[in-house]
Amino acid sequence: MKPTHHAFHLASRAHQAENTVISLGPMNIGTKDLTVIAGPCAVESEEQIRVLARAVSRAGAHVLRGGLFKPRTSPYSFQGLGMEGLDMFVQAARDNNLLTVTEVLDPEHIEALYERVDILQVGSRNMQNFPLLKQLGTLDKPILLKRGLSATIEELLSAAEYILLGGNTKVILCERGIRTFQNDLRFTPDISAIPVIHRLSHLPVILDPSHSAGDRDAVLPISRAAVAAGADGIMVEVHPHPDQALSDGEQSLDPAAFTRLITDIHAVANAIGRRVTS
Amino acid sequence: MKPTHHAFHLASRAHQAENTVISLGPMNIGTKDLTVIAGPCAVESEEQIRVLARAVSRAGAHVLRGGLFKPRTSPYSFQGLGMEGLDMFVQAARDNNLLTVTEVLDPEHIEALYERVDILQVGSRNMQNFPLLKQLGTLDKPILLKRGLSATIEELLSAAEYILLGGNTKVILCERGIRTFQNDLRFTPDISAIPVIHRLSHLPVILDPSHSAGDRDAVLPISRAAVAAGADGIMVEVHPHPDQALSDGEQSLDPAAFTRLITDIHAVANAIGRRVTS
Amino acid sequence: MKPTHHAFHLASRAHQAENTVISLGPMNIGTKDLTVIAGPCAVESEEQIRVLARAVSRAGAHVLRGGLFKPRTSPYSFQGLGMEGLDMFVQAARDNNLLTVTEVLDPEHIEALYERVDILQVGSRNMQNFPLLKQLGTLDKPILLKRGLSATIEELLSAAEYILLGGNTKVILCERGIRTFQNDLRFTPDISAIPVIHRLSHLPVILDPSHSAGDRDAVLPISRAAVAAGADGIMVEVHPHPDQALSDGEQSLDPAAFTRLITDIHAVANAIGRRVTS
Amino acid sequence: MKPTHHAFHLASRAHQAENTVISLGPMNIGTKDLTVIAGPCAVESEEQIRVLARAVSRAGAHVLRGGLFKPRTSPYSFQGLGMEGLDMFVQAARDNNLLTVTEVLDPEHIEALYERVDILQVGSRNMQNFPLLKQLGTLDKPILLKRGLSATIEELLSAAEYILLGGNTKVILCERGIRTFQNDLRFTPDISAIPVIHRLSHLPVILDPSHSAGDRDAVLPISRAAVAAGADGIMVEVHPHPDQALSDGEQSLDPAAFTRLITDIHAVANAIGRRVTS
Repeated sequence: MKPTHHAFHLASRAHQAENTVISLGPMNIGTKDLTVIAGPCAVESEEQIRVLARAVSRAGAHVLRGGLFKPRTSPYSFQGLGMEGLDMFVQAARDNNLLTVTEVLDPEHIEALYERVDILQVGSRNMQNFPLLKQLGTLDKPILLKRGLSATIEELLSAAEYILLGGNTKVILCERGIRTFQNDLRFTPDISAIPVIHRLSHLPVILDPSHSAGDRDAVLPISRAAVAAGADGIMVEVHPHPDQALSDGEQSLDPAAFTRLITDIHAVANAIGRRVTS
Repeated sequence: MKPTHHAFHLASRAHQAENTVISLGPMNIGTKDLTVIAGPCAVESEEQIRVLARAVSRAGAHVLRGGLFKPRTSPYSFQGLGMEGLDMFVQAARDNNLLTVTEVLDPEHIEALYERVDILQVGSRNMQNFPLLKQLGTLDKPILLKRGLSATIEELLSAAEYILLGGNTKVILCERGIRTFQNDLRFTPDISAIPVIHRLSHLPVILDPSHSAGDRDAVLPISRAAVAAGADGIMVEVHPHPDQALSDGEQSLDPAAFTRLITDIHAVANAIGRRVTS
Repeated sequence: MKPTHHAFHLASRAHQAENTVISLGPMNIGTKDLTVIAGPCAVESEEQIRVLARAVSRAGAHVLRGGLFKPRTSPYSFQGLGMEGLDMFVQAARDNNLLTVTEVLDPEHIEALYERVDILQVGSRNMQNFPLLKQLGTLDKPILLKRGLSATIEELLSAAEYILLGGNTKVILCERGIRTFQNDLRFTPDISAIPVIHRLSHLPVILDPSHSAGDRDAVLPISRAAVAAGADGIMVEVHPHPDQALSDGEQSLDPAAFTRLITDIHAVANAIGRRVTS
Repeated sequence: MKPTHHAFHLASRAHQAENTVISLGPMNIGTKDLTVIAGPCAVESEEQIRVLARAVSRAGAHVLRGGLFKPRTSPYSFQGLGMEGLDMFVQAARDNNLLTVTEVLDPEHIEALYERVDILQVGSRNMQNFPLLKQLGTLDKPILLKRGLSATIEELLSAAEYILLGGNTKVILCERGIRTFQNDLRFTPDISAIPVIHRLSHLPVILDPSHSAGDRDAVLPISRAAVAAGADGIMVEVHPHPDQALSDGEQSLDPAAFTRLITDIHAVANAIGRRVTS
């Protein structure tokens, strides 16, 4: 499989040598600061998101994640609260001085989410949903673009290029595990993608240890490894009662475990010369 | 990775023992008939599509394929003629008694394409574009659903379930190569997926040897293998001048090679008790 | 991963344009003849191998396979009868006019096996056991070289080169499934490797549908597909009572199913201009 | 692919809850100590290995690596100095207070290497060379067992079981990258295998960033990530003049870069509570 040359240009280091920095509230992603995004897979109830927002904020997270529209393999799985969850999500974040990120599945929802949410996420399954990428390229809003399960880094950067070409320069890349033959964890976190992306592109890149592993016990070592490899941040699933979660419970940390994780990654971040603000 | 039980139900053999048969013009897919879909990767000009439609019809194809909206990894690659190509595409097919199939990339185009085209295609990159699948589930029109590059068969059938749940029972599955470590061909055609799908589901399944291989010379042996393995049809890229094609030229057959392919797959089809009409 | 140039030379079509033909008894592999190898995963008893040899001979096989030394992932699995099984294996074949093939695991066994067996097999796990390959290169005896689980075709041909360099020109390649993400079958049979190998090399290539699939029901369609794709032969596991087999029972055919398979592949072989002798 | 239950037992945490500790000179692998192995891919000359041994010893390595017998994909690539390199290798290590590790390719060499070398390595291609594993199981000598390119962790631990069953309890596991679709680096370092192995087994595990990546620039971040993920050590290729190396030059560090790497991994090790002795 020969790489097509010039598949991306605006996303390349050749085009822009210095890092893209995206500053938003306390977050300065693309600098030495480490950004921490945390929250539940899906917003499930006002109580759940309120409790969690307080817990992750206290532990040191900067951004609250929470799915409203959940892309699920099976149509019989919980699909998220949809727009009904938006108010409770935004309010919980605001009450705890957190920024917000949520996934956009449908171009029809962009307008409503644009008004209320700080960062819009494109999920793995939509990494090459080109009409969606083109619409997001017209916004003045950071986009968190997750790598597809079997996307090469060239394909990820080419997907970012669709957004950049529209004029939106605020793209945050996210590694979330690739599909390989190994069967002990749900996916294989491609931690080595971090230095490769930093070499090829000026865009910031974070890692999602929760989806990468699909296994709670692996989240801590993978998070430490991602920071040690140079990730600009991590995005972690946390749930007040992981065993009762409506989705992804097996990979969610409880707030106590998340607090320990923060301590650990701060230590690793300091060891390699990164700053951590909280 | 444990499969979630009951990820699909309507798509399963347990739900419906007999094959789903989709009859449309001369095509009775799901029976012993072998369906042949052929045409260019992209509609490029009135001349190109007219010449090709005549050639593939003479060779024995039943359905004309032709991309209007091309999902391309790079935004700098040819993106297709869009709606401007629709008239020439439909006219060329009609003049040669061919049915039509084209890919829907954007939900906004469904309405216009629904009126004019016989089969709507969902591409690999959109296999889990759930809003798109849900809309196509409300139509009374056959849907050709391509397997994602790294989708398991369970995920493919769960994607079909999103369409079936909406009431549209006319889903044709399409294997188009999976992403593996092997690097001699562009993808690895998963020919063994055909018997596995037939065991798990009543839906018809065809194979696309052109995208599977990304290599013209491999199209003939892969097509024969697919038919021998029990595929209900094949979908082949043909171009009047493959070396001048605006996309996918390296995997396109010229009309003469396509004619030889038809002869070969007829022989194999007959050997295993399938009928071929032309 | 850039291919190293000139990794193999003697194995290439550039070096030898015409097919290597290996003639042995009724077998003329490398010509239009289709070679059928069949037998149990492991030789288990005199009774078992005698019954099987008769059955596969009647059905039309040319070569009897049977493992004496079994390479097993776990040291607690049945490891084969070893040299104790050799006499019964050879006698059963001779009584039924069959050639013999068995795997060499240990260089120490080469001498004893060389005297009694017609074809020596190198298993997947040993494809790059270079001391073993070098020793086999000094023999005047056909070698059946199985592709490693994750070997590229270049690596397979380079492994063959180690044998050819020693002076032994009688190498038969064998595709036996590659390791990918798909999880419905044990491995993914890389049927498209057959035309790729035929393009790059003059060596004959067969396919093992039993190990490729690890699933009895898939053996028939995969065998038909392999023949349709141009394989020079197939190697199939057959057991008198698959459910009682000491190894690989789930992928073994019983003699009746094997007889039906032979009928089917003869039909496909004839359809594409191959000869079948029995 | 269903895992066979009880494929390994002696290697499991269920069998032995506390870590296996292997103490040899300054190395106490399996404790909080971090072990550093470094040296050239292949021993090339007395001058080369002498210069390198001094450099890696000064930088803080504990063990000198150096290949005498090189398993190479192509028979036309440099195959190592063989036994001729043994004296110079051992002398260079001794002069610099380093332990030694080298790969055993052929059972015939075990006796000679056993006398002179501290740790015997089994390479990826031989992970399931069962006769070799069985022989190494009879020795009283640490074995460094590298994971195969596409081996699952269960297969790796089952391979270790072959050694343990012979009575040799001193097995060090080594992750060295797995084969996946990603094509920016030569292999995908499976850093998440480290916590998985630690959960399933009491055996120590190290990571080889050089073969994992096949790319000099990625060695530093991958090494930091491995240590952060809990690896008991790393094994790094270093060459005095990487661009002139007879093998693997593209992934070798020069001594200055190796010294910087040591500084970095010491910082990460300290951050997570590991000790580093030098």
